[in-house]
Amino acid sequence: MAVYTEVSDVELTGFLSQYGLGEVTSFKGIAEGVENSNFLLRTTLGTYILTLYEKRVRPEDLPFFLGLMNHLSDKGFDCPLPVAGKDGASLRSLCGRPAAIVTFLDGLSPRRVEPEHCRLLGSALARMHLAGADFATHRDNALSLAGWRPLFERGRARAHEVRPGLAEDLSREIDELERDWPSALPRGVIHADLFPDNVFFLGDRLSGFIDFYFACNDFYAYDLAVCLNAWCFEPDNAFNITKARLLLNSYRAVRPLETGELEALPILARGASVRFLLTRLYDWLHHPEGALVKPKDPLEYCDKLRFHQGVRDHRAYGLD
Amino acid sequence: MAVYTEVSDVELTGFLSQYGLGEVTSFKGIAEGVENSNFLLRTTLGTYILTLYEKRVRPEDLPFFLGLMNHLSDKGFDCPLPVAGKDGASLRSLCGRPAAIVTFLDGLSPRRVEPEHCRLLGSALARMHLAGADFATHRDNALSLAGWRPLFERGRARAHEVRPGLAEDLSREIDELERDWPSALPRGVIHADLFPDNVFFLGDRLSGFIDFYFACNDFYAYDLAVCLNAWCFEPDNAFNITKARLLLNSYRAVRPLETGELEALPILARGASVRFLLTRLYDWLHHPEGALVKPKDPLEYCDKLRFHQGVRDHRAYGLD
Repeated sequence: MAVYTEVSDVELTGFLSQYGLGEVTSFKGIAEGVENSNFLLRTTLGTYILTLYEKRVRPEDLPFFLGLMNHLSDKGFDCPLPVAGKDGASLRSLCGRPAAIVTFLDGLSPRRVEPEHCRLLGSALARMHLAGADFATHRDNALSLAGWRPLFERGRARAHEVRPGLAEDLSREIDELERDWPSALPRGVIHADLFPDNVFFLGDRLSGFIDFYFACNDFYAYDLAVCLNAWCFEPDNAFNITKARLLLNSYRAVRPLETGELEALPILARGASVRFLLTRLYDWLHHPEGALVKPKDPLEYCDKLRFHQGVRDHRAYGLD
Repeated sequence: MAVYTEVSDVELTGFLSQYGLGEVTSFKGIAEGVENSNFLLRTTLGTYILTLYEKRVRPEDLPFFLGLMNHLSDKGFDCPLPVAGKDGASLRSLCGRPAAIVTFLDGLSPRRVEPEHCRLLGSALARMHLAGADFATHRDNALSLAGWRPLFERGRARAHEVRPGLAEDLSREIDELERDWPSALPRGVIHADLFPDNVFFLGDRLSGFIDFYFACNDFYAYDLAVCLNAWCFEPDNAFNITKARLLLNSYRAVRPLETGELEALPILARGASVRFLLTRLYDWLHHPEGALVKPKDPLEYCDKLRFHQGVRDHRAYGLD
């Protein structure tokens, strides 16, 4: 949650003159997204989100992200739709940063995950995977297997500050992941960051996904593994098999899982744990002392990793 | 700009069940107000701001603030209107904090102040003063003359960290303010914190004031002095006499200024400088090291104070 960039009146007016969105009636920074500056923009024609992409987003990836949101919307999957300017372009520049306007998506992200959320999430994720299957652009997952060891090396020397022995445990785990990581699973466009913050619900339905700025091409089942971690553990880090069963079964009711995908779930879940453990470790070690925006606790993902290390097969996730 | 408190689904649902605002369609933290947690709340019936009052606001003052917004709205002055629940109360409790919902006010606060903003501000401020004149509740200004010396003593020992000699200068200035502060000027309800952040404009008109959480009873002309400082200096701290003239003349076209008020402007402007210098000094000395939310620079108000110390009379502010 942050607004990093101040937008002046002159810059805003100049920027909006490139669109046909009517007159601005309100413009407020909102506490959404950790990585970018987000503003709620209301005009005489509607409500929108204006995003300025800050340093963690590579500008060359933005056409993939915005193109994907357009593609998914076209296919009837609910997500913010990039708004094109008068010249047809939706990606432009504001305050020296890449910037885009997207439509406002109604809904609330759950602060406390209920089993029903997991059931709705599973089928929506499968629908997203199917809707994205014919998206033509490709983006590698920079935060998958090949990225973990370099990221680990940047935090290794100080990992013991978070927990004694963490560096040794992580080194051994990455060895095993490099040895056992699957290579031949069904793949396509995945969200790759589908935490409850990024999923909106409205009444008894799921109203859409937001924040596609980690989306990439990778195993579909890896997206499920990310969700298992983000949605199916309780605040005390206890695994909730009921939530997992609902998530996975509602997913495969829309997009059936192959045997290879089922078998790979434990190792994918270990990899998904390592991915968030490593980025949280990095943020933990590099945040300014006493900062008001506290980094998330890496140890949460140590617990999740340990759970998946103890899993024999997919039945531990509630499947037959 | 901050959201300090996380509101859970259960707490939000329980809270909103006390209102007749329809179904929630969106709930987002917004980066508005330094002191409280603010959320944009959209429902099937409209758009609102939900505020949780954090530690700097005294709960016993809230009936004054909310009552004032009600009173001003009733009188046709544009500001957020507190929304009453089904029981008729607009002040209640959420997440252990006092909380209220107010209507959403359209408009944008100027990031860069133009002379026309000052002209519109002056007449609106006078209209606010007139509209509040028969507001029956009273609240002393805790940050006026009597509050300055105690606040100064809390920062005195470390004031030299901000600027060598600052403690001595401030001590002498407070002596003089205590000696020369006026006592018999017209008084009533003032806003007391009317920075550009708290004033909204829409096209070529001023659409309203927000953030009445420093409002109190004090000299009307003191509100003008606060505005002189907040609106009529350039980013390099040079005084802009054109902006001051527009502010003051448009004010007195609606509410004429007495001779005593004109004569008091320089000392009131010195006091208004000291007030913000002291609170900024305190925040500067007490913010956590490396915090992402940087406190505002106290030295800006040293420059403004020095300007007003050199002023002979109200003609320096562009008046005849």
